[in-house]
Amino acid sequence: MILDCAIIGGGPAGLTAGLYASRGGLQNVTMFEKGMPGGQITQSSEIENYPGFFDHTKSGMDFMDTWQKQCFHFGMKHQMEEVTSVYKVGDNFQIALAGKEPVEAKTVIVCTGSTPKRAGFKGEDEFFGKGVSTCATCDGFFYKNREVVVLGGGDTALEEAFYLSNICSKVYIVHRKDTFRAAPSTVERVQKKDNIEIITNAVINEVVGDNMGVNGVYLGINDGSTRKLDLTGLFVFVGHNVNNMVLKSNNGEFICDVNENGQVIANLRMHTSLEGLFVAGDIRIDAPKQVVCAAGDGAVSALEVISYLQERS
Amino acid sequence: MILDCAIIGGGPAGLTAGLYASRGGLQNVTMFEKGMPGGQITQSSEIENYPGFFDHTKSGMDFMDTWQKQCFHFGMKHQMEEVTSVYKVGDNFQIALAGKEPVEAKTVIVCTGSTPKRAGFKGEDEFFGKGVSTCATCDGFFYKNREVVVLGGGDTALEEAFYLSNICSKVYIVHRKDTFRAAPSTVERVQKKDNIEIITNAVINEVVGDNMGVNGVYLGINDGSTRKLDLTGLFVFVGHNVNNMVLKSNNGEFICDVNENGQVIANLRMHTSLEGLFVAGDIRIDAPKQVVCAAGDGAVSALEVISYLQERS
Repeated sequence: MILDCAIIGGGPAGLTAGLYASRGGLQNVTMFEKGMPGGQITQSSEIENYPGFFDHTKSGMDFMDTWQKQCFHFGMKHQMEEVTSVYKVGDNFQIALAGKEPVEAKTVIVCTGSTPKRAGFKGEDEFFGKGVSTCATCDGFFYKNREVVVLGGGDTALEEAFYLSNICSKVYIVHRKDTFRAAPSTVERVQKKDNIEIITNAVINEVVGDNMGVNGVYLGINDGSTRKLDLTGLFVFVGHNVNNMVLKSNNGEFICDVNENGQVIANLRMHTSLEGLFVAGDIRIDAPKQVVCAAGDGAVSALEVISYLQERS
Repeated sequence: MILDCAIIGGGPAGLTAGLYASRGGLQNVTMFEKGMPGGQITQSSEIENYPGFFDHTKSGMDFMDTWQKQCFHFGMKHQMEEVTSVYKVGDNFQIALAGKEPVEAKTVIVCTGSTPKRAGFKGEDEFFGKGVSTCATCDGFFYKNREVVVLGGGDTALEEAFYLSNICSKVYIVHRKDTFRAAPSTVERVQKKDNIEIITNAVINEVVGDNMGVNGVYLGINDGSTRKLDLTGLFVFVGHNVNNMVLKSNNGEFICDVNENGQVIANLRMHTSLEGLFVAGDIRIDAPKQVVCAAGDGAVSALEVISYLQERS
């Protein structure tokens, strides 16, 4: 059997693509996701910026549970397999699976997202989603009029610190060097902001807390001294890994155009440079890394798959 | 007072822009919407394709009610005024209001959407949302394995008819001429499809039904005869009006680039050709006209407004 559409990845983008593709009348739509569907958001204890969903008693896990059921209701199938690569043979695609025969599909939507890098300090994993965050847009508001610390020295770190400084009472920026990789104008803007304090030549040694979440962050300074910040929010911005490995062919080249950061180049209709291959969510250029945006992408990509298949028929 | 951001239009795009702008720390965010916020979706009796929202007991009105409360919770203000035009003076914008002093804003997000044209037959308004629809993606699935009729002869009408033919048992296309404006390849594809019947030289005289919704459609044929279709779903695709009037200046030109259909040209970050002016939702090019996509646009546009203001500061 040849699939009408193979969806790689089961976060908000992939699930929404599946919902729209199957509800739109495609007969054979399979989402490949080796883990439980839902994506990064399942690690959140609370969501308040997904439009129309405003229930402080529900976690990210509860939220994605309804979402999944909705997708499966319309006929999308989930195959719990790891996709190792995607390549085009003639008009169709081969989806290579770890330790299994490949699957053939007429179209592919890649929704494998990106993964925030961890910094590696003690307590980081333990308190992730309980005070340690990698998304200012998502979690900044939970620290309104409170103090937070940002780890990182790149453009994203400094821009996010500035964003947080408009919400939080004070933002500490901890950076291991005394110079910044970020653009000079961004550095200057951050330096001028009254409620931002920059702590250079410093690392985070440990984050501590209790069952209410984080309550302190221990810094190690290059001169050998230490410092403790008594606060409940820590934002880690040390980069993202774009999960584009399935698009890399054996010769090391990508099967579609990507930018210098490995993000897939797409237009407003989620077309890539390769016919029949679409993307949605955090894997693409300019992705705002928000659930509602990934979901919007998923819907568009599926509608475009349907038109593409209509034209091919 | 100068607003940080003026949002024009209160549908899903405008409301989400307001949510993200105010939750993102902007102090003065006002949404201008002369009617009740919520947009077209409030006319739907049931929604099943907004990801994460899967409750058949709730109407479009119920859905948008929670959504609005969420936006207002974070500080967005609603001004119940009609915006007549938006124009740039220096670095800022003037928002002209009907019968009131204009308001000044540093940035503007235009989310005025588009409005499906009505065909004008008897019963069309009465049964709108109760069997009469203007969106196949939204409502097609409600007619799975049932018969529907499509009114129109353009590209959209024929493409949507094809889309419906993969879900419904049969699709009638009613078109007032015997030639089609749609692309020849599209016409040919539709003609070849087994479960599509094309009725040319015909109009819809009346749609009838009861409190369960539509149950019949009366056609008038050019030769003077009539025909009744016993079915419960009617899709009207006779064009859209893009609500771009606020962007037209006194000399008749638009303040930003628009395409030949009057849709605003935007990139993936919802920037228009005019600095400080952003769009979101159905007013832009390539808009899929889905709630989740409009909401995604709204989020992106607000995040871009925040970065733009950061850079300006």
